[in-house]
Amino acid sequence: MARIAVVGGDGIGPEVTGQAVKVIQAVLPGVETVDYDLGAARYHRTGEVFPDSVRDELAGFDAVLLGAVGDPSVPPGVLERGLLLKMRFDFDQYVNLRPSKLWPGTAGPLGAVKPGEIDFVVVREGTEGLYAGAGGVLHRNTPAEIATEESLNTRFGVERVIRDAFARAQRRERRKVTLVHKTNVLTHAGGLWARTFEAVKADFPDVTTEYQHVDAAAMFMVTAPSRYDVVVTDNLFGDILTDIAAAVTGGIGLAASGCINPERRFPSMFEPVHGSAPDIAGKGVADPVAAVLSASLLLDHLGHADEAARVTQAVASELAARTPGAPLRTADVGDRLAAAAS
Amino acid sequence: MARIAVVGGDGIGPEVTGQAVKVIQAVLPGVETVDYDLGAARYHRTGEVFPDSVRDELAGFDAVLLGAVGDPSVPPGVLERGLLLKMRFDFDQYVNLRPSKLWPGTAGPLGAVKPGEIDFVVVREGTEGLYAGAGGVLHRNTPAEIATEESLNTRFGVERVIRDAFARAQRRERRKVTLVHKTNVLTHAGGLWARTFEAVKADFPDVTTEYQHVDAAAMFMVTAPSRYDVVVTDNLFGDILTDIAAAVTGGIGLAASGCINPERRFPSMFEPVHGSAPDIAGKGVADPVAAVLSASLLLDHLGHADEAARVTQAVASELAARTPGAPLRTADVGDRLAAAAS
Ligand SMILES: CC(C)[C@H](C(=O)O)[C@@H](O)C(=O)O
Ligand SMILES: CC(C)[C@H](C(=O)O)[C@@H](O)C(=O)O
Repeated sequence: MARIAVVGGDGIGPEVTGQAVKVIQAVLPGVETVDYDLGAARYHRTGEVFPDSVRDELAGFDAVLLGAVGDPSVPPGVLERGLLLKMRFDFDQYVNLRPSKLWPGTAGPLGAVKPGEIDFVVVREGTEGLYAGAGGVLHRNTPAEIATEESLNTRFGVERVIRDAFARAQRRERRKVTLVHKTNVLTHAGGLWARTFEAVKADFPDVTTEYQHVDAAAMFMVTAPSRYDVVVTDNLFGDILTDIAAAVTGGIGLAASGCINPERRFPSMFEPVHGSAPDIAGKGVADPVAAVLSASLLLDHLGHADEAARVTQAVASELAARTPGAPLRTADVGDRLAAAAS
Repeated sequence: MARIAVVGGDGIGPEVTGQAVKVIQAVLPGVETVDYDLGAARYHRTGEVFPDSVRDELAGFDAVLLGAVGDPSVPPGVLERGLLLKMRFDFDQYVNLRPSKLWPGTAGPLGAVKPGEIDFVVVREGTEGLYAGAGGVLHRNTPAEIATEESLNTRFGVERVIRDAFARAQRRERRKVTLVHKTNVLTHAGGLWARTFEAVKADFPDVTTEYQHVDAAAMFMVTAPSRYDVVVTDNLFGDILTDIAAAVTGGIGLAASGCINPERRFPSMFEPVHGSAPDIAGKGVADPVAAVLSASLLLDHLGHADEAARVTQAVASELAARTPGAPLRTADVGDRLAAAAS
């Protein structure tokens, strides 16, 4: 039976993961969950962000379900680099999976795009590129200061994430992969990505492909988001594009994500894209849908495709039945989703 | 009297710059323009992209007006790196200026945003960052291949563009500057940008400021574009954000840009953001508005603020009077704009 580590985190994090756990338990009776205390609160209490001992414990789980970490009181970067990025790198979560869907019953900001017309997934590389942390500063705080950031890209790292994207496209209806990079300017890394893409493509003859520069893709995600099926891109481009994708599908409130080690050598981590929203924390009014959709990604990753589909279907019904703008209770939504999915 | 080099370029480039020149001549009688032949056509004919001799001639002009360069028949990168980026670097065009406006009479893709509600300008750094071309490839085409791209940032380069952004904000009504970077991940370069921003801010006490991570900014440009006044950011982030900005204001068809050397030690270059559109080239149906708006930026840069304002006003009237979707003739639009501006 699956063992899941639950990091509720800060703000609304524990509230929404509570519902996600409820839903997982409903479709997977007997699942074992263990709570871990990480985030701003622990950082303030103990100074610890992600102790190696906790990392080693988490390594023994099948997956990690995370709510949200962060609070304005913590200096920027501390939890991001020390916890979220450390987990991606230490657990080799090289597929950062971010589905985007304009759900029936919801409204996006694009006047001409109807629910159901946006349905794509971004496969963002998670362990390389500008996120490697390479770079430095010389002559700090003088007129001569220089600062560098280095994007590191390996054939190994690029190929495995592109393969994953093609494999996902093959399981989808439209079977199309869009590579996004900036080959006309970033010729070194862009060349590696483009050549690797061409090589992998040969192994997936039933998948159609296209290439777009990142600036064009950023535009088309607004003007023509329906054209995408699977998008594969590097770490930083993926960071930006998935926020545009969330914006055109009604905001990060509904967006789910997974940081995945496909081989399951390490636990994968699943979290809603939204933050800890300290302003509404503790009131029981946060929408747990993004956390529950993240749980669906978790179930799918652990091989429970049917259960995952039932959870997604429950969310679809929930959203279709909602009156836009009507208040909701976090626990009620969780109860409804758990009942509908079981 | 101002001397302007005109690079019509490929596709619809010469058609739209023709109208822009017409408008400039109407507001600045006696202006001298000289045509230069650069772009895909010349590349195919002679193999030349941007010969040093032409660069040295252009250096003697007050400004360059460019239409569009590029054609699917030219390998990607050749004209981009060899002409456009080379001009930015050789002429030290460190302010890449991109105004975004949702013009009355036009319709953007955002259902809830009305014309007039978007009016901001992105000041994109133009001579540093990942565009420096630093990086390389090892073990090409082997499983051991690695590719790097290095972002190079100097206090000198960052400070001058941030100063320019603050100075522009000071001349605008809302007087607000938003710095966009990714300080939580790109700590080296992000630190330099953030510290420099704080230092420059002290010299502009009447300007309000905010900071956003690039992923959040990409989202807010879709969900809340009205909040921006002046946005200052690095070269690559600016590339992406300005395409989102163009998307939410009705597409690149109306977007103007300037690659500016504010001290006028070198000529600045002004061009519409759209491409050469080979499919409609030669038919006389391309909309010259983006080229004419670029001419307005050119006039402003050369110290002809009144003339620039008259050109912008002529465009505003033209757009307000249009029936969306109605066909237009390139030369007729140019005639109307020239008449209205003079
Ligand atoms: C919090 C931050 C480090 C992170 C990232 O940049 O990847 C976030 O923006 C995300 O997209 O998960
Ligand atoms: C053509 C390309 C090199 C250029 C850039 O990346 O700057 C373009 O996208 C732009 O925004 O002007």
